[in-house]
Order: sequence, then C-alpha cells, then structure tokens
Amino acid sequence: MINKLIAKIQKTGAPIVVGLDPMLGYIPEHIQKKAFAEYGETLEGAAEAIWQFNKEIVDKTYDLIPAVKPQIAMYEQFGIEGLKAYKKTVDYCKSRDLVVIGDIKRGDIGSTSAAYAVGHLGKVQVGSKCYVPFDEDFATVNPYLGSDGVKPFMEVCKEENKGLFILVKTSNPSSGEFQDQLVNGRPLYELVGEKVAQWGEEHMGDAGYSYIGAVVGATYPEMGAVLRKLMPKTYILVPGYGAQGGKGKDLVNFFNEDGLGAIVNSSRGIIAAYKQEKYAKFGAENFGDASRAAVEDMVADISGALNAR
Amino acid sequence: MINKLIAKIQKTGAPIVVGLDPMLGYIPEHIQKKAFAEYGETLEGAAEAIWQFNKEIVDKTYDLIPAVKPQIAMYEQFGIEGLKAYKKTVDYCKSRDLVVIGDIKRGDIGSTSAAYAVGHLGKVQVGSKCYVPFDEDFATVNPYLGSDGVKPFMEVCKEENKGLFILVKTSNPSSGEFQDQLVNGRPLYELVGEKVAQWGEEHMGDAGYSYIGAVVGATYPEMGAVLRKLMPKTYILVPGYGAQGGKGKDLVNFFNEDGLGAIVNSSRGIIAAYKQEKYAKFGAENFGDASRAAVEDMVADISGALNAR
Repeated sequence: MINKLIAKIQKTGAPIVVGLDPMLGYIPEHIQKKAFAEYGETLEGAAEAIWQFNKEIVDKTYDLIPAVKPQIAMYEQFGIEGLKAYKKTVDYCKSRDLVVIGDIKRGDIGSTSAAYAVGHLGKVQVGSKCYVPFDEDFATVNPYLGSDGVKPFMEVCKEENKGLFILVKTSNPSSGEFQDQLVNGRPLYELVGEKVAQWGEEHMGDAGYSYIGAVVGATYPEMGAVLRKLMPKTYILVPGYGAQGGKGKDLVNFFNEDGLGAIVNSSRGIIAAYKQEKYAKFGAENFGDASRAAVEDMVADISGALNAR
Repeated sequence: MINKLIAKIQKTGAPIVVGLDPMLGYIPEHIQKKAFAEYGETLEGAAEAIWQFNKEIVDKTYDLIPAVKPQIAMYEQFGIEGLKAYKKTVDYCKSRDLVVIGDIKRGDIGSTSAAYAVGHLGKVQVGSKCYVPFDEDFATVNPYLGSDGVKPFMEVCKEENKGLFILVKTSNPSSGEFQDQLVNGRPLYELVGEKVAQWGEEHMGDAGYSYIGAVVGATYPEMGAVLRKLMPKTYILVPGYGAQGGKGKDLVNFFNEDGLGAIVNSSRGIIAAYKQEKYAKFGAENFGDASRAAVEDMVADISGALNAR
C-alpha cells in the first residue's frame, strides 16, 4: 500500500492528505437541516450529515489528492451510527481510488492489538467464513506499549499489504511532556523513531520506503529534521499544517531529497475552508468548491517550499 | 463513579474486575452453533455468540463482583456488528448494577480526545438533543500525547461523575522498551505516574481516592510497590493476573494499608475457566458456573494474600 501511496503522490504532485474530521460545527446548515429533516435530530441524523458532508468534499477533491485520513473519534462520538458513517466514508473513498489512512491511534498488546489489526486492516474469521470489517489501507498506532503492541499490527500489514503510521512526535503543545524527556541525553521520540525505522526494515515497499511509517507533527520542524535523518526509509505523516500553525516552509525538513518521504495532513483547513475569509466567496452552499481551492493552495504552498529549497 | 466502585468493592469483598474479552475461541461450541444457526457464519452471528456468552458469565457472577472490563478491541474486530454487542454488553452490565470499565485505550489531542470522551463517557449534542452513545463508567486512556490528550477526558469525567484509568506501566513483556527508559535516573513510568497523581488531585472522590486512576501490570510487582507510594490516592487497575502470570501474593504491593487502592483484572482466567483442567468438571455446557468458581477462587487468593501481609 505504500507503493500505491507513493505512486499516487507522484501522479497528483500532491504530498498531502485531507483529514476527514467532520465536527458537526463544520457542516453547513443546509446539510444538517436536510439530514435532520429525514432522520430527526438523532445519532442517525448526525451520521447522515457527516456522510453527505464527506461525500461532497471527496467528490470535489479526489482527483487532486492521493489520500484521505478520516479521524475515527469524530465518528465514534456518535456511537454505532457514527461508526457506520465512518465505514461508509472509508468505502466511498476507496471507490474513488483514494488511499485511506484510518486515524484510529489504537494500541494494545498481543491478541488485543491483533484484534484491532484484523478489524481495521485485515480479515476476521467467523466459523468457515472471512470478513473485512473496516478495511482501511493504513492505520495510525500508539507505541507506548512497545513491540508487543506494534508487531501484531505489522503481521496483519504483511499479509494484507497494508501499512501503519506510528506516533513518534505529536503536533500538540504538551506532546513534549513525555515524548521529549531525555533518555541518555536524547529525547524519547528519537528512541521511538529509531524503533519505527527498525520495525520498518522488516516490511519494505518497492520505492525504498517502508510500509511502516511515522507520525511527526508539523509544529516541530527542527525535530522533523532530526527524525527525517534518523528514519530515512520511513514515510512521515505530518499533522498540524494550517489550523494548528504549520506552514509550507516549515515542512521541507520532513521530505527527503527525492521529494518523497512525507505526506502532510490538513483537516479543518480543507474541510471547513468555506468558513475562512479567504474562501468566503464560495459561500456555505459551495463548501466543496472552497475545499478544492484550499487543496490547490496547500499543494502550491508545499510545492513552492520544496522547489525553493 | 469511583465512590460507587469503592462501595461495591467493600460490599462484595472482591477487589476484582472480570475482563469481558470474548475471543471466539473462548466461546463454547453450543453457543456458537446456536448463534450461527440463527444468523449464519456472519459478523452478526459472531456478535450474537459474544453477547450470549457474556450474558451467561455476567448472570453467573454479577453478585460476586463490583465491576467488569469489556475490551473493545475484541468487539471492534467484528466491525459494526461487534460494536453493537459491545454496547449491548455495557448496557446489560449496568442493568445488573455493575461498574463498567471500558478498556478502550483511546488517546488523542484536543477536540479529538474530547470526541472520544463524549462518545464513551459523556453526552453528544445533535441539534437541540443530547445522546449518550456508549456510556461506560470508566475508560482506559493512553497518556503518550501528554496533558492535551488527557484533560478533555477529565473534563467530561467531571461533568458526568465518571472516571479514567490511565496507562502507566503495562503488563506485557516489552512494556519496558519505552516505559522503563530512565529520565534523570528515574523510569518514564514514574513520571507518568506522578502526572496521573497530579491530574487526579483535580478530581477527587469521597473516600480519599481520585476519579483518575492508573493501569499498572500485575507482572511488575516491584514497580507496583513504587507506584503505589508515588500515587497514594490513585486507584490502580491491575491487569495480568492469572493467564499472564500474576498471582495473589504478587498483588499485595498494589494495595494501600486500608485494603483499598487496587482492583485486579482477570479475563481469560475467568471467562474461559471451563477450559482449564481445574474447572473441567463443569463442562463447556456449564461454562458460567466454571467462571463463578474461578471468581470465588480468585477472590480467595487475593484476600488470602492481603490478610497474610
């Protein structure tokens, strides 16, 4: 799947991923009204609003981008109905030939990690039959529990040609509380990064990059530079662009000289673009067109920064 | 909710929690056959088997125990149908007046953590209405992302009188890879433990214990002793008893002098007790009675160890 991701990044010229994190507050009034008219102000109604919102954004951007990253929490908060909208979104994005990175940040041990892995990336056995429950292409994974937590995911990835992005250095202000603590003079995130690189060696793709990637926040560009060197064959998923403060010029550190090695996520900045002054001219009715324009601007910003280095 | 948990522990004399982690392999043939006859070898069939299995175990043990801990991964692996069985299990356990600890190990940042928190412990707003999607009493949380990840959960806990158990030192063999790394001469898990104690001060219950608990594996009793002192007002959820190797005598370190402060989980050892030689006499048909006997033995083991200290 890393091969497909890289091929699509090269084809679109867009090392970006659109974060499908549909808070209800981002969804235009007219979409919510229509969904509530049909299903009431219910969990089902919320799920329908999310789904219609996502579908429009995907329809208006899928030809420009290689991948999407639905954040499962935003669906899970609406319970079973929300998770149905998550699954519908995953399936629809795949039908549009997008690579789907499930931002699930799961992590447990042994058979429990294996259960998450088969549920999200693999097949589950029921008697003599097999099913693919969620079927994302990549999943994000939390490394706090160590190799026991990650290896069951890797085994499923090998079987299914799927991939992971493992949290190394997250984009939030307090990420340093534990991740930056010095261990023998080096921050913990470097140790985690080294481990990710090592795990990655066990599952390499064709283009010199591993199926096992890392998450490093755009908000920490200096750390990105260090981690880039420490994990040369690791694809880095970079959250924190746009709304969280990261800009194109901060991102060059995350890429290798071949122009590959990183994929930058923007969620709010794309999906709620119509709410920004810059894209207000589109109006809430044409929120999908605003998202398309925001994607084009983001690609230009990052390409410009990469070309200028 | 910590108040209720403590009251129930005192009433039952059982500082234990039954882990409802129903792998299909644990579920007796006759339960699976019946479910598959009704729903086919489908995800729905698997979910029905899980639910019937759980119900029997809860019916046979609820009067002896204060709490259950369903492991959501074991349900999530069967997709939406599995998650419906999770929700059904949560609701049924609550109808039996059990405290429900959702072992979800979620953890993200800001609004994303908040979304998990409202989805599992709180209420979600849809238009003018409010819904309680999963409605567990406690949830387990991964601390790798720092305060930004934990505080949104704590806010919901305060509103709803619910609680957390935050991963500090996990029971698996490789938990030391990151958790044991020395920071200024002290292992990372101690730093996390101190942080948990500090977060806990912001949300104290009535009996001298906080709503914000910790997870520390039974497999590391010496570390348990250190963490017990470091977090005197923190309830410790202790996994790793039984199948993972922990025994009653290893557990005394996790308790305070008042006999409180810890709750020990057993999953496989209770729910699949009928598969052990010791309980084979019950037979697969009476797996619930085997679980009941295993609960009684576990309570005796732990009480014995606590009385002997």
